[in-house]
Amino acid sequence: MNGFIAVHCGAGYHSDNLKKEYQKLCHVACRKASESLNQGGSAVDAIEKAIIELENSPLTNAGYGSNLSWDGSVECDASIMNGQTLHFGACGAVSNVWNPITLAKQLCVKQCDSLSLGRVPPCILTGKGAKLWARRMGLEIVDDRKMISARAYRSYKHCKRKLKRYSQQNDIKFSPLDTVGAICIDSNGLVAAGASSGGVSLKHEGRVGQAASFASGVWAVTSRDGIQQSIASCTSGCGEHLIRTQLAKNTAESLLEPSPVLGLDKCLKEKFLESPYLWDVGQRLGGTLALRFDPQAGEGEVIWGHTTKTMCVGFMSTESDRPKCVFSYLPQKVAPGQKAVVSGHPFTVPTQPNPVVQWEIKTDPHLIETNHNGSL
Amino acid sequence: MNGFIAVHCGAGYHSDNLKKEYQKLCHVACRKASESLNQGGSAVDAIEKAIIELENSPLTNAGYGSNLSWDGSVECDASIMNGQTLHFGACGAVSNVWNPITLAKQLCVKQCDSLSLGRVPPCILTGKGAKLWARRMGLEIVDDRKMISARAYRSYKHCKRKLKRYSQQNDIKFSPLDTVGAICIDSNGLVAAGASSGGVSLKHEGRVGQAASFASGVWAVTSRDGIQQSIASCTSGCGEHLIRTQLAKNTAESLLEPSPVLGLDKCLKEKFLESPYLWDVGQRLGGTLALRFDPQAGEGEVIWGHTTKTMCVGFMSTESDRPKCVFSYLPQKVAPGQKAVVSGHPFTVPTQPNPVVQWEIKTDPHLIETNHNGSL
Repeated sequence: MNGFIAVHCGAGYHSDNLKKEYQKLCHVACRKASESLNQGGSAVDAIEKAIIELENSPLTNAGYGSNLSWDGSVECDASIMNGQTLHFGACGAVSNVWNPITLAKQLCVKQCDSLSLGRVPPCILTGKGAKLWARRMGLEIVDDRKMISARAYRSYKHCKRKLKRYSQQNDIKFSPLDTVGAICIDSNGLVAAGASSGGVSLKHEGRVGQAASFASGVWAVTSRDGIQQSIASCTSGCGEHLIRTQLAKNTAESLLEPSPVLGLDKCLKEKFLESPYLWDVGQRLGGTLALRFDPQAGEGEVIWGHTTKTMCVGFMSTESDRPKCVFSYLPQKVAPGQKAVVSGHPFTVPTQPNPVVQWEIKTDPHLIETNHNGSL
Repeated sequence: MNGFIAVHCGAGYHSDNLKKEYQKLCHVACRKASESLNQGGSAVDAIEKAIIELENSPLTNAGYGSNLSWDGSVECDASIMNGQTLHFGACGAVSNVWNPITLAKQLCVKQCDSLSLGRVPPCILTGKGAKLWARRMGLEIVDDRKMISARAYRSYKHCKRKLKRYSQQNDIKFSPLDTVGAICIDSNGLVAAGASSGGVSLKHEGRVGQAASFASGVWAVTSRDGIQQSIASCTSGCGEHLIRTQLAKNTAESLLEPSPVLGLDKCLKEKFLESPYLWDVGQRLGGTLALRFDPQAGEGEVIWGHTTKTMCVGFMSTESDRPKCVFSYLPQKVAPGQKAVVSGHPFTVPTQPNPVVQWEIKTDPHLIETNHNGSL
C-alpha cells in the first residue's frame, strides 16, 4: 500500500538544544503513520497515529505536556477533517482525555452515522460533554495530574511569576510553541488533515482555539469532478488570529495556483500578514503545513510556510526508507511576525485514482442504546 | 441619530396559532434596538438589546426557553461580529448565563484590550470557563431551573417519549425552531450581526453549533477602501450544516452581486442546497437574514432567504414609526430542505459616512487584577 505523510511539531521557537529531539519525534510520528498506511490504514487512521506520537511527547504543546491554563489545568483542542467525506470532527477545551486527536477522529467518523428522529451527530464537542462522549466511546481517560509534564509545570510557574513581576509590560512573550499537526494521502489517493493543541499558556478556562474551529486549524478536500488536485493543510500559531483569517482553508486553497510555493507565499502575505482581520495585531505569528496532490499523475508537493522564528516539519512516502526532517528558520534579520518564509518538496505516490468508495449511512446502535437508558 | 435594525426569531416551522405572538416579539425587539440607536448606541449595542428581547421570550429557542440537551440542561451558544473592528466574540455550550448575547458582546468588545505579556483576549469561550468569565464581568447568573420554560420542558419530555417509542424510525422530526438573530446599521454607518441559540433538542452536552462558530452564525464587514458596501448576516438552521457551509459569510458576501436578491438565491442554491459539503445530508434546512448598505448613498436592502417551512423577520429604520414584520413561507407544494425562497426590502439610512473612529488599544485593569490574585 502507498501513501504520504507530513507532520510538524509546531510553528514557534524551537530551542537549539532540543533540535535533535524534535527531529527524532517527527521521525517517529512519520514512521507510525507510514506503518498504518502500509497496513491499509486510511489517511484519517494515519493522521491519528502520527498525532498520538506528537501528543504523547512532553516536547510538544499537545496532549500530555500541554501548556497549562490560568488555573493550572490542561485543556486540549483537536480536530480532523476527512477530505473525501468532507466531515470535520473537533473537541475543544477538553480535559482528561489522554489522546484528544482520537476523540476528534471518532467525532469525524461518527458523522457517517445517523441518529434516530433525524438528529445530527455533533461535529464540535467541548468541555465536560466532550469528556463524557470520549468515555462512552471507550477512550483512555486519565487524572488531571497525568496530563501535566514537569516541563509544562515549570513553565507555568515561571510564567505566573513573570506575570506578577511585569504585569504592565507587554514586551515579554512566552508560549513558544503551538499546535502540532499532520496531513496525509492514503493508497486510495484520499487526503486528510489533523491538528492538536494545548492552547496558549495561561489561557482562560473554556477557551477554544483554531485547532477546534472549522476551516482554521485543518483543511482537506480530495479531488473530485472539476477539481484535479487534492489539497490538505494544518496550521499553527495564535489561535484567535488563525480563526479570524481561516488560515487552514485559505492556505490549502492557495496551493491550487499554478505554482504552489508562490501561491502559499502570496496567501501568507495577503491573507495573514496583511489581512484586514488582523489590523489591530502587532505580531502576526502563524505557520502552515500543506500539500497538493494530483491522483491521476500520482505527483504532489508538500509545502510549509511560517512567520514564526522556526518551524520543524517531517515527511515521508511509504516507499522511502526514512523520513526527511527539515528545520525551517526565518532569515536572521527578520523579526517574527513580519515576513513569511515558504519552502517545499515534490513527492510521488502511485495510487489507484478515483476509487469507488461507498459511504454507508447507518444508524449507530451504540449511541441509540446509551441514549435510551439515559445513562449519561 | 439614525440607523436600521432587522431581527428574526428562527427559520423553521412557526405554529399558526402563535403567529401574532412571534410578530409582536419581533416588533418589541426592533423597538428596543431602535431606542438604543436613537440614544447614540452602536450597532453592537443595538444588536444586544434586540437579542435580549428574543432570548427572554419563552417562544424562541435562545436563552430562557431554549431546547433542553439530552440530560435536561440548557446550554446556549451566542456570538456577535463587529463589522468595523472585525472582532468576533462567541460563547458556546454555556449554562446559567441569563443573556448569552451579552456574554458574546463582552467577549467581542474585550478584544480591543490587550493583556499583559502579549496574551490575546479569547474570542471563543465555552462551558464552565465561559460562565466563570461572565460572572467575573458582572453578568446575571441564574440557577439551572430558571433557564427552563414550561414549554421547553414539555417538549423535552415529549421528545424523550417519542424517542423511546420510535427509536428506529427516522421520519419524526422535532426541534421546529433554531437560532434567533439580528443585523444592524448605526448612525455612523457601521454594521454588526448577532445570533443566539439553545441548539438542537436533546443535543449532546458540550455540543457547539454555528451560533458560536466563526463565519457560520454571523458575519459583518463595514465598507472600507475598495469595498463600497457594508454587509451583515445571521443564520438559522441545523448548526452542523451551517458550520460546514459557512453560511453566514457566504450569504453576506453573496449580496455584493449586482442584484442582492439574485445573489442570495444563487448562494443558497449553490453553496447550501447543492453544497458538496452537504453531500450526505437529506434535508438541508437553513435560513439567513442579511443586508447590504452603501454608506455614501445611505441606501440599502434587507434580504432574507430560507429552505425551512417558515421564517419570521422584523425590521425598522429609526426614522419609521413602527417595525414591519414579515412571515415568509415556502410555496405549499415544496418540501422543506429542497428549495429556497428569497425576498427583500429596500431602506434608507442617512448616515455620516466614513467616520474617523479611534480604536484604543488599552490594557484592561480588571482582567489583570483578577488574574493577579488568581481568584478563579
